[in-house]
Amino acid sequence: MPTYLLTIAYDGARCHGWQLQHNGITIQEELERALAAIDLPGVRVEGAGRTDAGVHAIAQCAHVVLPRPFEPERLLMAMNTHLPPDIAVQAVREVPAGFHARFCARGKRYVYRCRCSRVRPAIGRHLYHWVRREVDLDAMRAAAAHLVGRHDFAAFASNPGRKLVRGTVRTLHHAHLIRRAEGFDFAVQGSGFLYNQVRNMVGSLLEVGYGNRSPDWLREVRDARDRRRGGPTAPAAGLYLLRVLYAPDLSPGPEPGADDDV
Amino acid sequence: MPTYLLTIAYDGARCHGWQLQHNGITIQEELERALAAIDLPGVRVEGAGRTDAGVHAIAQCAHVVLPRPFEPERLLMAMNTHLPPDIAVQAVREVPAGFHARFCARGKRYVYRCRCSRVRPAIGRHLYHWVRREVDLDAMRAAAAHLVGRHDFAAFASNPGRKLVRGTVRTLHHAHLIRRAEGFDFAVQGSGFLYNQVRNMVGSLLEVGYGNRSPDWLREVRDARDRRRGGPTAPAAGLYLLRVLYAPDLSPGPEPGADDDV
Repeated sequence: MPTYLLTIAYDGARCHGWQLQHNGITIQEELERALAAIDLPGVRVEGAGRTDAGVHAIAQCAHVVLPRPFEPERLLMAMNTHLPPDIAVQAVREVPAGFHARFCARGKRYVYRCRCSRVRPAIGRHLYHWVRREVDLDAMRAAAAHLVGRHDFAAFASNPGRKLVRGTVRTLHHAHLIRRAEGFDFAVQGSGFLYNQVRNMVGSLLEVGYGNRSPDWLREVRDARDRRRGGPTAPAAGLYLLRVLYAPDLSPGPEPGADDDV
Repeated sequence: MPTYLLTIAYDGARCHGWQLQHNGITIQEELERALAAIDLPGVRVEGAGRTDAGVHAIAQCAHVVLPRPFEPERLLMAMNTHLPPDIAVQAVREVPAGFHARFCARGKRYVYRCRCSRVRPAIGRHLYHWVRREVDLDAMRAAAAHLVGRHDFAAFASNPGRKLVRGTVRTLHHAHLIRRAEGFDFAVQGSGFLYNQVRNMVGSLLEVGYGNRSPDWLREVRDARDRRRGGPTAPAAGLYLLRVLYAPDLSPGPEPGADDDV
């Protein structure tokens, strides 16, 4: 039975996350419904990881095992016909049998978008976090440097009590603060991310940006491994899953299933 | 009684336009409710012009006559506290008695945003018009040149049967097609715009961009003064009111009340 890798974009505003136990439509459900509508009932869509309600994806990945072969372009067009306007398959490719979107992922990229203005903005409010105060981006860069590398990120994991099969040590490959015309982006790549890790890192970085804390405070928070020491969790609206990283041959990495959740 | 000029941003997705007879909340109503909430009941908010449901404003203008003086910054903050997330006052200034947001307007700027991609986009879908085919931007520029200047724009007015006090002759100061990373913008400035004029111009320009029509076809459409000759009306989602133009001394222009509607 052929396996396909789907790249999916979605607007997180309406749906209740990728997959959740709560009531409300999820992205995964919408994708499975679209498959059912094109005569592929009961097909499971396995995502590379979950995203919370309100979090967007520019390129989430998922795999499906289908009972019969499909032309990738036809599968894409057919699914998009049945998906709601805020979810769209961006690409489809056939992958070797045994490929798993989550277990083969080598890492992920996220971007967190902040819009800076003294006066409250009104347009597309679900697509960014509004930052109303001046921020010192250089101080935030100095602070972010303490996050790059292999660390125990327990201080940036929400629900630290939940059972984490793989513990809380991850590798952050890079963390950039990029000035934009209307604010700034926080762009990260890592081997995997703990639940709410990016949003919690942003919340702490903003404390530094506002001048409430020094850049070195972030190292203290990190080393304390205690979520209560950090800044608040930044809102979901600013977060975008930008890319899921796979090896060229799509083989599982040394840390299979790198993500627990974001 | 002091008069204030309000500059207002709004996301057109939820509200039913600036002011309409239909059921549903309007921007004007929301602003008047916010004033009532700060102990200014019964104050009329007079806009520089209407916008349809789905049309956004980066800087709509309106005036209010208040029973007592207010510090402009305090009025802004107080109104924004009571306005919904998709409407926000951006600036407030006191203006001479007798100023009228509509009758003093000398012109307006609009931008129409198109996102170009073969595959359907999913994020922020209410903020742009999705163009799925290749467009020839140079051909569209040549076509747009036929719109600049003083013309009878009846061919680009929806509901041509409605009574227009000022007829259908307007001056278009400029019309630019600007390539963006994700598509293109159509930016216009004019003395005033007829109902749906910008969206109808975009619909016809896209016919040229797709190669269905030559650039000179737009001149034929214009000179025919017949709405049925032009392309379809482009969706409201792409349209943004960018600026309302006033004289430095805020005096009425030679064409007071330049807009009928957009």
